[in-house]
Amino acid sequence: MKFGYFDNQQKEYVIQRPDTPSPWMNYLGSQQFFGMISNTGGGYCFMVDSRKQRITRYRYNNVPMDAGGRYFYIRDEETGDFWSPSWLPVKKELDFYECRHGMGYTIITGEKAGIRVQTKYFVPVDDNLEIWEVEIRNTTQQDKTIKIFSLVEFCLWEALNDFTNLQRTLNLGEVEVEDNIIYHKTEYRERRQHFVYFAVSEPLFGFDTDLETFLGRYNGFHEPVTVRDGQPQNSIACGWNPCGSHCIQLKLKPGEIKPLNFLLGYFENPENEKFAAPNVLNKKYVKPIIQKYLQRSHSTQAFNILKADWDELLSHFQAESPSATLDTMVNIWNQYQCVITYNMARSASFYETGIGRGIGFRDACQDILGVVHIIPAARSRQRILDLAAIQWRNGDCYHQYQPLDKKGNADFGVGFNDDPLWLIIATAAYIKETGDWQILDEMVPFDNNPDDQAILFEHLKISFTYILNHLGPHKLPLIGRADWNDCLNLIVTRIKPGDTFQADASHADLTSEIGRVPESLMIAAQFVWAGQEFTLMAAQRGDQSNSEQAEKAVNEMIQAIYKAGWDGQWFLRAYDRFGNKIGSHENKDGQIFIEPQAFMGIAGVGKENGLLMQAMDSLHERLYSKHGVILQQPAFTEYNFNIGEITSYPPGVKENAGIFCHPNGWVVIAECNLGRGEQALRYYLTICPAAREEISEIHRCEPYVYCQMIAGPDSPRFGEGKNSWLTGTASANFLGVSQYILGVKPDFDGLRIDPCLPGDWRTLRLKRKYRNALYDIVIHNPTGVCKGVQTVIVDNKELKGNLLPAFNDGQTHTVEVILGK
Amino acid sequence: MKFGYFDNQQKEYVIQRPDTPSPWMNYLGSQQFFGMISNTGGGYCFMVDSRKQRITRYRYNNVPMDAGGRYFYIRDEETGDFWSPSWLPVKKELDFYECRHGMGYTIITGEKAGIRVQTKYFVPVDDNLEIWEVEIRNTTQQDKTIKIFSLVEFCLWEALNDFTNLQRTLNLGEVEVEDNIIYHKTEYRERRQHFVYFAVSEPLFGFDTDLETFLGRYNGFHEPVTVRDGQPQNSIACGWNPCGSHCIQLKLKPGEIKPLNFLLGYFENPENEKFAAPNVLNKKYVKPIIQKYLQRSHSTQAFNILKADWDELLSHFQAESPSATLDTMVNIWNQYQCVITYNMARSASFYETGIGRGIGFRDACQDILGVVHIIPAARSRQRILDLAAIQWRNGDCYHQYQPLDKKGNADFGVGFNDDPLWLIIATAAYIKETGDWQILDEMVPFDNNPDDQAILFEHLKISFTYILNHLGPHKLPLIGRADWNDCLNLIVTRIKPGDTFQADASHADLTSEIGRVPESLMIAAQFVWAGQEFTLMAAQRGDQSNSEQAEKAVNEMIQAIYKAGWDGQWFLRAYDRFGNKIGSHENKDGQIFIEPQAFMGIAGVGKENGLLMQAMDSLHERLYSKHGVILQQPAFTEYNFNIGEITSYPPGVKENAGIFCHPNGWVVIAECNLGRGEQALRYYLTICPAAREEISEIHRCEPYVYCQMIAGPDSPRFGEGKNSWLTGTASANFLGVSQYILGVKPDFDGLRIDPCLPGDWRTLRLKRKYRNALYDIVIHNPTGVCKGVQTVIVDNKELKGNLLPAFNDGQTHTVEVILGK
Repeated sequence: MKFGYFDNQQKEYVIQRPDTPSPWMNYLGSQQFFGMISNTGGGYCFMVDSRKQRITRYRYNNVPMDAGGRYFYIRDEETGDFWSPSWLPVKKELDFYECRHGMGYTIITGEKAGIRVQTKYFVPVDDNLEIWEVEIRNTTQQDKTIKIFSLVEFCLWEALNDFTNLQRTLNLGEVEVEDNIIYHKTEYRERRQHFVYFAVSEPLFGFDTDLETFLGRYNGFHEPVTVRDGQPQNSIACGWNPCGSHCIQLKLKPGEIKPLNFLLGYFENPENEKFAAPNVLNKKYVKPIIQKYLQRSHSTQAFNILKADWDELLSHFQAESPSATLDTMVNIWNQYQCVITYNMARSASFYETGIGRGIGFRDACQDILGVVHIIPAARSRQRILDLAAIQWRNGDCYHQYQPLDKKGNADFGVGFNDDPLWLIIATAAYIKETGDWQILDEMVPFDNNPDDQAILFEHLKISFTYILNHLGPHKLPLIGRADWNDCLNLIVTRIKPGDTFQADASHADLTSEIGRVPESLMIAAQFVWAGQEFTLMAAQRGDQSNSEQAEKAVNEMIQAIYKAGWDGQWFLRAYDRFGNKIGSHENKDGQIFIEPQAFMGIAGVGKENGLLMQAMDSLHERLYSKHGVILQQPAFTEYNFNIGEITSYPPGVKENAGIFCHPNGWVVIAECNLGRGEQALRYYLTICPAAREEISEIHRCEPYVYCQMIAGPDSPRFGEGKNSWLTGTASANFLGVSQYILGVKPDFDGLRIDPCLPGDWRTLRLKRKYRNALYDIVIHNPTGVCKGVQTVIVDNKELKGNLLPAFNDGQTHTVEVILGK
Repeated sequence: MKFGYFDNQQKEYVIQRPDTPSPWMNYLGSQQFFGMISNTGGGYCFMVDSRKQRITRYRYNNVPMDAGGRYFYIRDEETGDFWSPSWLPVKKELDFYECRHGMGYTIITGEKAGIRVQTKYFVPVDDNLEIWEVEIRNTTQQDKTIKIFSLVEFCLWEALNDFTNLQRTLNLGEVEVEDNIIYHKTEYRERRQHFVYFAVSEPLFGFDTDLETFLGRYNGFHEPVTVRDGQPQNSIACGWNPCGSHCIQLKLKPGEIKPLNFLLGYFENPENEKFAAPNVLNKKYVKPIIQKYLQRSHSTQAFNILKADWDELLSHFQAESPSATLDTMVNIWNQYQCVITYNMARSASFYETGIGRGIGFRDACQDILGVVHIIPAARSRQRILDLAAIQWRNGDCYHQYQPLDKKGNADFGVGFNDDPLWLIIATAAYIKETGDWQILDEMVPFDNNPDDQAILFEHLKISFTYILNHLGPHKLPLIGRADWNDCLNLIVTRIKPGDTFQADASHADLTSEIGRVPESLMIAAQFVWAGQEFTLMAAQRGDQSNSEQAEKAVNEMIQAIYKAGWDGQWFLRAYDRFGNKIGSHENKDGQIFIEPQAFMGIAGVGKENGLLMQAMDSLHERLYSKHGVILQQPAFTEYNFNIGEITSYPPGVKENAGIFCHPNGWVVIAECNLGRGEQALRYYLTICPAAREEISEIHRCEPYVYCQMIAGPDSPRFGEGKNSWLTGTASANFLGVSQYILGVKPDFDGLRIDPCLPGDWRTLRLKRKYRNALYDIVIHNPTGVCKGVQTVIVDNKELKGNLLPAFNDGQTHTVEVILGK
């Protein structure tokens, strides 16, 4: 069952009924001011940090679901009836409903009883506010008098404090209302210099800023007493829950369209100019911004800039393939999600409450892989340097930092042993895209200590060496507190009910004997991958010694994998703290895992001797289901704290045999490295959100973005998606489809073309912007091979090999590629 | 405006309309299983620890307010109409509504369309469950067919995790349904041995355990689709939000009354007998408990035991005075609140979210003062020993512990310099009540380290010495991170927006130069108070050396106060980190504070030389308002981080010139020590909840219990109460009224009688149980004095002095007291 359709022309997903199986979200903002918005107007916005500077309030996992957002109430002054154009919160049936989620904006239209209200929500590229462009149309032949009430509820900044420390927060709320503008200034009187404004382009009939006054005691968002009565109370919040509600009365002639601009913005005053008078906000600096965007001409211009910005960003990679589904995802939504998850990591979504995770180390590194071709190089560059700065001198990396202060989170701590390698992989991807070798010579502190710095290359070397310094009994890398699978916790020994396996550094035995036994085959493969990159980077710098040592270490690791990492039909997952195998046919549960097979495939381990092919065949036989490749099988039926959180989940969900969409992207890469194009595309399409649109009632999540997990066959909810918009997944799948299936892969010295297609794909067109040139690529597959570039013609000249040069000339270059044996 | 009335016969407050100005709460449970319940059925329950073992889910500060609880839906099978007998959540108008909050139970009755439903909620004294005794009556002359749906939503145990870590928690939910009983067993498969049962005494028409299935997507609690359609779905929760809903169909003849018992309980299995089959709960041990309480005879018996238990507890102190308001509070509600706050401290209320505060050190010590005459001595004794065990060897005390593990909370840390003195005061109160001197010889660890122990008396000595080791430039006690006023933070220097002044140990400069300057006059007075107690306790032990040293130190402190603590018309509050005065006429804001005046009064400092009288007169002139004595005046108009959080509040609320009910109790004591009975009673009655019943629309909080704070005159909401049921306040006021106004004060060697009354109170009767005897006391005031015991006749014999002996004979003793000059 579908709830909407893709409008690729507009780069929009169009939702045609409001009661989607879960709130289908979109994001606003691209620099500092961010918002998330559901198809029914739910969600919230924040400045830089979703925990520390949350602007509007949102109650997660609430009853009713998705309550709280950017709301309008339309009241017919003749009948007294009222309704919401976004369906929620009033939830009265609409005569027409449509939500268009676009690139950085959302348009929600609702019509009832002859009034059509369309609202376009967006954040300008360079200013810190949401603009809501509203158009109200009288679709009848009669005059209509209506009142429109807006509503946002303000968050008192620190989001966790906001909903746990009520004995304080319920006393703090302060607002000012001046010239039709509502200013939310809680805590401005003390340590904050920032406040929120909520403005509208029309004179007010009235307003409210005290939520209880607006709603009436014991009332929900669906039944505000002020709206019911048509009587705003002009309340000035004093503690409790401050909100912003404008009331505007409009008389509309038949067919008349009334435009309104609402602005919801963040502003920071200079420290010594906070007040215009005692306790009165200085509004001198904010007023011009408000005045500007209240004008439709300026807001329209801002929207056009935003639209053009996204058009440009997405133009860096465009495909025309035989699969419309693939094109939709690759050209629009997958890249869009890559950028959003790069911005958000796992800090804020409908499932991530925006208070706990901040920016993850591994998360952010992987997200870079998916955006480095899109966003300005300076942003990826800064992120890499920020991440390197939370590394310790011994190579350990904090697992997470808050975006506001960029300091490593000591509570989470260090000891996730894949983290250092991701820094190498992300840096290599950045250089391959940009050619900016200079980044390796940037000075970067350790643990944000300015007195202890080294160049980035040194950080990478320390990262690489960290693994060599942390090998276990089989000369395989120690897993530490976890590898990519945060729930495989092999050294957590102190764990009581309610404790977290991952997030509390104090539960792990990192430095004890226990910590020196459990090994990860995934990190082993990742070491080979990252080691290959490091070898090349060192060589390029003329550092032969490091390059050769690294190459040697990589080869030794491959041998260690062959010796101790092969289970007979697939690669093992790990060794536990007793030296027992995990992910082996010898085990009762968890006999085969997705990660080592996929990662060996990415690194190419076992390609030379057939083990990889066998492993991937085993994966297909034992892990593939109609809803995707399962993380492991059989599911763990019993809790085992020696294996960790993975065994704490009911079978079929999350890491315990759920279908993780993220490693499914890796599986695509592995299959492409084996040259099996049909299989690669099959894996790609099975979890591809757009390909699951028809089963939205089962999948439940948005059909335009990846979710973290789809319930596996062991769950009664097999096929149900959860946790959409999460970090990592979009980038892994974009890598798989763009660099491996479609086969356009940036390399240190140019753009390598090496597609891996189903045999029946005969032609393909790709446009790729790379190092200040546009490559207009047509791929012909006349003999129906899966893989193998026979001829490359660039600008009508045949090229030796398949590495397109970096032109750096601002020009378009035509590339013709012929596949064959 | 009143919303109900006191039914003192039943010891109940009767609420007659459901839309109280805020949810008016009550508590269930007395040992381990606790619940809080509003007058509309809202609230939740937990086992031992409101954070770590929360049983049902409650969303704080929600929209609508107070959503989530113990709900029923009554559906008329003829009309399809449905409603809730507790008004919420359906919120349909009732033909009759009544909520009776009693001692450890609540009875809510609602009637609509000829069906009356009465539910009595309580927790048996010795078992870990809520019993809901329901009676459904057909009040019409026709047959009626109805369906009744129950609803609770389960919390997934750790309450903070439950609403912040959705990416995990939404995957965990597991239930079983067997024999009409719903078992909630999330995480039972892993580290937990405990589960919840939700049972009913009638066969089921159906059930639901998946909240979304029960409610319908996007629906609120007021509109469950299963109830609307009369069709339970027999859903088995699998992740998302597990709930429990029974559906029972009843046919009722005219006038017929149908009793139903619902049970909501916690149970823990033996570790090696968790399962009856793989993943199937072992129900062998829980079934007999369920079967027992499903029978009305057994539940009624349990209720009668509970009722008798409270009757006995409250019989320890009973007054008949000329003030009915005072009697209502003293005899019932004030003592009841003392017990509840002793149990809860500040961990769980409508305002305290139950996740952050646990048991406070100072809180718990003060709460002991209010319950030591009521609860079994063993419980106060254990609490004192638990508290002493979070003291460090240097005298510092952790400010807080979680009840489940009783370990000091390292995040909160130490350094609140009044804490150690409260331990002395609480221990003295315990001995005075019980005569149990042996407690001083109990071995108690420091910081819960079994290898580092000392007897309790040594802890007290260390506490006393701690102050002497922490004197400032004026030989007054250093304040540390704060004294009783947690918001007077004189050594916090590292404080950014969103940081907490109090709860994060890392913000304070305890050990730096800054920490060695700020002094507190409140602690100085408290030292005199505690020092007097310590002197007597040491002497009683024959420890003359410590006793004399302590007496000397107390006298030196009094001199230091006279020298550096007197501002000319009142006592100073403190010295800040620069040595400047706080609470002086020299200041612009915060010229006079309540705490030093009241505490000097408690300790008797300045009584000898008239300073105390002058201070209390200044307090009356400058701090007294029609809604109570204000914490300080003038309010701080500007933020000043050198003074701390107090200045961060808007004027008139919280510590910034709000009316704190807690120190108002101290003011009563101080006035009594001055012998001014009219004034003492006036202060007492001004904030007395029952005396404010008539202005409930202004006061908003429950008229039967104290709230933390009433907004002061600087606030637009002057007179509005917030944060009811909080720690400390009830006990401070109970001390004031019972020991000082009514004048029955336990001493080390007996019960001292020394009332302080308004002159026009001519007679008074008090019953007091003390050390295994009942004192039946009649006080005569023939000449209309305020204070002064002229004659005491015990069992018809005149006593010398006013100290009634401790009879310890299980008998009733008549006491006649005649006041006079």
